[in-house]
Amino acid sequence: MATPLVASAGWIVSHWFYRIDRRQWRSLAAEERRAAIDEVRAWTAQAGAEEGMQLVPLAMIGKADFGLIAVHPDLRRHQQLAQELGATAFGACLEPVYSFLSLSEASEYLSTDADWARTLIDEQHVDPTSADFTSGMQAFRKRMSHYVEMRLHPTLPDNFPIVCFYPMAKARGEARNWYVLPFESRKKLMQEHGQSGRKYASRLTQLITTATGVDDWEWGVTLFAGDLKAVRDVVYEMRFDEGSAIYGVFGPFYVGIRFAADELAAVLRL
Amino acid sequence: MATPLVASAGWIVSHWFYRIDRRQWRSLAAEERRAAIDEVRAWTAQAGAEEGMQLVPLAMIGKADFGLIAVHPDLRRHQQLAQELGATAFGACLEPVYSFLSLSEASEYLSTDADWARTLIDEQHVDPTSADFTSGMQAFRKRMSHYVEMRLHPTLPDNFPIVCFYPMAKARGEARNWYVLPFESRKKLMQEHGQSGRKYASRLTQLITTATGVDDWEWGVTLFAGDLKAVRDVVYEMRFDEGSAIYGVFGPFYVGIRFAADELAAVLRL
Amino acid sequence: MATPLVASAGWIVSHWFYRIDRRQWRSLAAEERRAAIDEVRAWTAQAGAEEGMQLVPLAMIGKADFGLIAVHPDLRRHQQLAQELGATAFGACLEPVYSFLSLSEASEYLSTDADWARTLIDEQHVDPTSADFTSGMQAFRKRMSHYVEMRLHPTLPDNFPIVCFYPMAKARGEARNWYVLPFESRKKLMQEHGQSGRKYASRLTQLITTATGVDDWEWGVTLFAGDLKAVRDVVYEMRFDEGSAIYGVFGPFYVGIRFAADELAAVLRL
Amino acid sequence: MATPLVASAGWIVSHWFYRIDRRQWRSLAAEERRAAIDEVRAWTAQAGAEEGMQLVPLAMIGKADFGLIAVHPDLRRHQQLAQELGATAFGACLEPVYSFLSLSEASEYLSTDADWARTLIDEQHVDPTSADFTSGMQAFRKRMSHYVEMRLHPTLPDNFPIVCFYPMAKARGEARNWYVLPFESRKKLMQEHGQSGRKYASRLTQLITTATGVDDWEWGVTLFAGDLKAVRDVVYEMRFDEGSAIYGVFGPFYVGIRFAADELAAVLRL
Amino acid sequence: MATPLVASAGWIVSHWFYRIDRRQWRSLAAEERRAAIDEVRAWTAQAGAEEGMQLVPLAMIGKADFGLIAVHPDLRRHQQLAQELGATAFGACLEPVYSFLSLSEASEYLSTDADWARTLIDEQHVDPTSADFTSGMQAFRKRMSHYVEMRLHPTLPDNFPIVCFYPMAKARGEARNWYVLPFESRKKLMQEHGQSGRKYASRLTQLITTATGVDDWEWGVTLFAGDLKAVRDVVYEMRFDEGSAIYGVFGPFYVGIRFAADELAAVLRL
Repeated sequence: MATPLVASAGWIVSHWFYRIDRRQWRSLAAEERRAAIDEVRAWTAQAGAEEGMQLVPLAMIGKADFGLIAVHPDLRRHQQLAQELGATAFGACLEPVYSFLSLSEASEYLSTDADWARTLIDEQHVDPTSADFTSGMQAFRKRMSHYVEMRLHPTLPDNFPIVCFYPMAKARGEARNWYVLPFESRKKLMQEHGQSGRKYASRLTQLITTATGVDDWEWGVTLFAGDLKAVRDVVYEMRFDEGSAIYGVFGPFYVGIRFAADELAAVLRL
Repeated sequence: MATPLVASAGWIVSHWFYRIDRRQWRSLAAEERRAAIDEVRAWTAQAGAEEGMQLVPLAMIGKADFGLIAVHPDLRRHQQLAQELGATAFGACLEPVYSFLSLSEASEYLSTDADWARTLIDEQHVDPTSADFTSGMQAFRKRMSHYVEMRLHPTLPDNFPIVCFYPMAKARGEARNWYVLPFESRKKLMQEHGQSGRKYASRLTQLITTATGVDDWEWGVTLFAGDLKAVRDVVYEMRFDEGSAIYGVFGPFYVGIRFAADELAAVLRL
Repeated sequence: MATPLVASAGWIVSHWFYRIDRRQWRSLAAEERRAAIDEVRAWTAQAGAEEGMQLVPLAMIGKADFGLIAVHPDLRRHQQLAQELGATAFGACLEPVYSFLSLSEASEYLSTDADWARTLIDEQHVDPTSADFTSGMQAFRKRMSHYVEMRLHPTLPDNFPIVCFYPMAKARGEARNWYVLPFESRKKLMQEHGQSGRKYASRLTQLITTATGVDDWEWGVTLFAGDLKAVRDVVYEMRFDEGSAIYGVFGPFYVGIRFAADELAAVLRL
Repeated sequence: MATPLVASAGWIVSHWFYRIDRRQWRSLAAEERRAAIDEVRAWTAQAGAEEGMQLVPLAMIGKADFGLIAVHPDLRRHQQLAQELGATAFGACLEPVYSFLSLSEASEYLSTDADWARTLIDEQHVDPTSADFTSGMQAFRKRMSHYVEMRLHPTLPDNFPIVCFYPMAKARGEARNWYVLPFESRKKLMQEHGQSGRKYASRLTQLITTATGVDDWEWGVTLFAGDLKAVRDVVYEMRFDEGSAIYGVFGPFYVGIRFAADELAAVLRL
Repeated sequence: MATPLVASAGWIVSHWFYRIDRRQWRSLAAEERRAAIDEVRAWTAQAGAEEGMQLVPLAMIGKADFGLIAVHPDLRRHQQLAQELGATAFGACLEPVYSFLSLSEASEYLSTDADWARTLIDEQHVDPTSADFTSGMQAFRKRMSHYVEMRLHPTLPDNFPIVCFYPMAKARGEARNWYVLPFESRKKLMQEHGQSGRKYASRLTQLITTATGVDDWEWGVTLFAGDLKAVRDVVYEMRFDEGSAIYGVFGPFYVGIRFAADELAAVLRL
């Protein structure tokens, strides 16, 4: 299995949530436990330091005990990561609770050159033959290209310790079906939705990944925040947006707290 | 993991329900069981006595055997609590059945100054320029501020031994969708619903917590009562309220009985 | 946990269904098994003989192996029963499959004095000022009071060995919602439904219990019969009643056969 | 538990599907495995040879490993069969996957004397006062009585090694509800459906059993065939019948291959 | 069980996905593990080399660890394959996660002679009495016969390491029901859908199999690709086709990477 399987666009993102089988853990002798902790700590640190890898260990609350988010361009590396963890002594005490496989993407509903030209001309009254217009367009392209880069090749934020993940889809119900709406209607709904979310930009960071064809839901949403109330507020408020209220279908929600590899034993009380 | 993760408003509330793995429990020697009981009893007593902590052990009936409700401002403390319990010998005999993570909140549908001014003027015929009006408004503000404080920083009642928990959401169906109703319609429905419930105030106490974005349902309802019939009656009667009949969606129901830490072995027949 | 938690009206009813973990059972030595059988037999006999207790052991067919129905006024006694069983050697070989917690109740749709007065006057042409009318009303009240007593304080029949249990609810769908019907419509539908059932009175006995607010479904139906065909026929036929066809929502069905405590080993092949 | 519990009409039919717990099986010593195989082989042969018993062992494909279909008039015998198997050493290595309890029945939608008289008179132009009519009616009654007997007291075919089982129900949706259709409409739909199926009579045999009130679905369908394509074709083709397309609701599908008791070890690789 | 059970048309296709029970695996001694790896490697190689067998081992990502796809004409061989694997030491460490049984088929919506004659005459203006028409029709028949052969007797591609499987069905909802559409409408929708897919032909290969009557969904879709983005793109794009947007119902998605038998230990970190 030599050749990597790098996606032609975007990076591959895995979410894995586990329960700790405490009975199995306690069946290990004290020394075995110490060795197990060292082993998984070393593995986490080493894997996390690989070129192109972003690996976030999580202390989950409620439905799971331990979690990992991995961002890496190569699908093979994701496959190997899970088995490497499984092959550790600690990994043999983990029971999978939920996992999600997805890809980073730049949304198809981004503003286009034409959208921005219209904004400049109609809303900002810029003369389309002026130098201001040209520089306005150039600035827009630079912003968009930076934004697309950030979406396709995301850097997981390290200043927000609370992580909330949930998968979602767009409704294909009998009366309300996202997939029969014209592109322009979908784009309008998604842009309104984006504006609702942007008000929370200082309180949290979001990572939207696409999963159609690769997991059971169509998108994954990973929120990073410092305040659980901010997570609740943004999701609650956005639920009233037309795009969510009518077309959003939500899967299970998982909440965890980031920790550093060497905190493993303390955080999980191993 | 030093810094606490206190929500910017409200306290964090966890519900955890477990089955006891009797096979595992019986595999412990008599002395180990005694030590295990002492360990969990001491942990419950100590954790329950922490500053800012409310911890309620429950003897569940039916779908689970043992439960814990924890109220504490810090999300990290909740994460630690579950792992501390898991790390005990008794904890290694527990199988998670259900959990729920939520936040206390003051409802967004509370009466406003303007609502009360209208009540005073239109229903109680108080002259809005009179001293009666001013004092009426002051009394209202005091009542509301006390109520908001009670909702945001709830004290779990200790006079009602029966505890019933269920999560719920508001419908986002094709024909009936709470999230497309105007605010005033939602407020009217919630206030009617609140009046139905208030008739039962002497027979039970309720704790409503918000979970949108942090768990799979939108709200958690925890009822404290001395009479199982009161629990049944209030939920049954309120199901006919328009806000519930048409828009309420209910999750699983869990019933338990509070007990004191030192009753653990007797109550759970350990 | 001294004070009992008796419901203010009705008795509390528990249904518990279990699988036998045959691997665990076989891991016991022959003597341990004999002791385990004696222990659970003694427990069943003793608990079943308690004042106020009705305890029915069941040999389940299909989805479970062993079941218990318990009727007792005190919620604490129900909590203790399950843990007492769990604490036996046989109990440690049981895996919970399903449980249901409910309360006996007299239906809210019973005929009233006014209903019966109308029947006497309009259908039986009794003069409302006559002595016949007075005695007719007195007889009605006596019948109803007996019926209410039977519903609130049911005696589980011992002449019908087959027991079928299923939980149910009334629809709250988008187009068909029981909870927005006026009381009189619901009463009419329930009385028609009751008449369908009454034709089967000689072939089976039913126990209807209320569970709104205390378990996931709104009612529990426990049928006692001597003939599995009678169970099938009554449920099938009643499914065409408007109240069931349009508004009935049915949960899982469990079938078992009553047995006496001392038949345990023979019936379950222990 | 002496007296049998024979249904007042029809025979009782059980389907049981199991996974083999290979870990548990491997934990037996080679001799124990040989003894276990002998034990279950002897039990299968003996139980299968009982008066009134039809017992079909199945090697399942996909969702289960091992299955049993039992037809017997007495509900107690079904209860005992499952526990007898569970009490064997092989039985302790089985994990229940799915079970279904049902009753054989003669459909309520069979052609009546009046239906056939109409056919003779209107379609075959037979003079209703002629001897031909009388003999035509007698032949019809004989055919129907034979058919009813075959439905109520079915003989499982032994010439078709492939067995497919699935449970089903009729829709009680908001817009399309089988249970509010008049009897004649249901009869017409069921007779059309029967005709679709009859074209496959040479390729497969079906057993339809009723389960309303005794298991979670309303009917069980057991198909016996020699060709998996025939199973696929008949179910696929019949899905376009109005009675299925609009009103059919289907549960899980299980496929297995019949085998003889003494093939157990070879077929299941024990 | 001598006689094979070959389907009268098409080959039988099994998908099996498993979790590795790491606890059980670790409980084997190092030598036992080596022997277990040799055993399963030998079995995979040998079974995969059988006449008529196509056997693809998969390293799964997310919901499972290990998978097998088997294509073989004989249903008995499929039954045996799963038990042969189960009977290995490695097989005793596998927990079934999902399986799917289906049959290869040539779609019923293929273009007919008449369709192609119409294309030649109406779109390509070929004279139906000309030699060109005759040779055009002959070429069409050859193409179709090759296509049908490829669908009925598929060769799994070995140049695309990423495999994505999902089951699906066509909607039988209250307002939108595939099974009441006329054949021509269904054919039109399926041909449009096929054209959407064909644009991706160079990036992936698909295997469509039929499962109505033999598993819980109506079709299985197995995609082979070298780029996870291509899998996402084709499924996402096709979701907007009318046949999918309105009538497609999708089951769980499983993603894996092909590997050769001798890579087993390295790929799964055994």
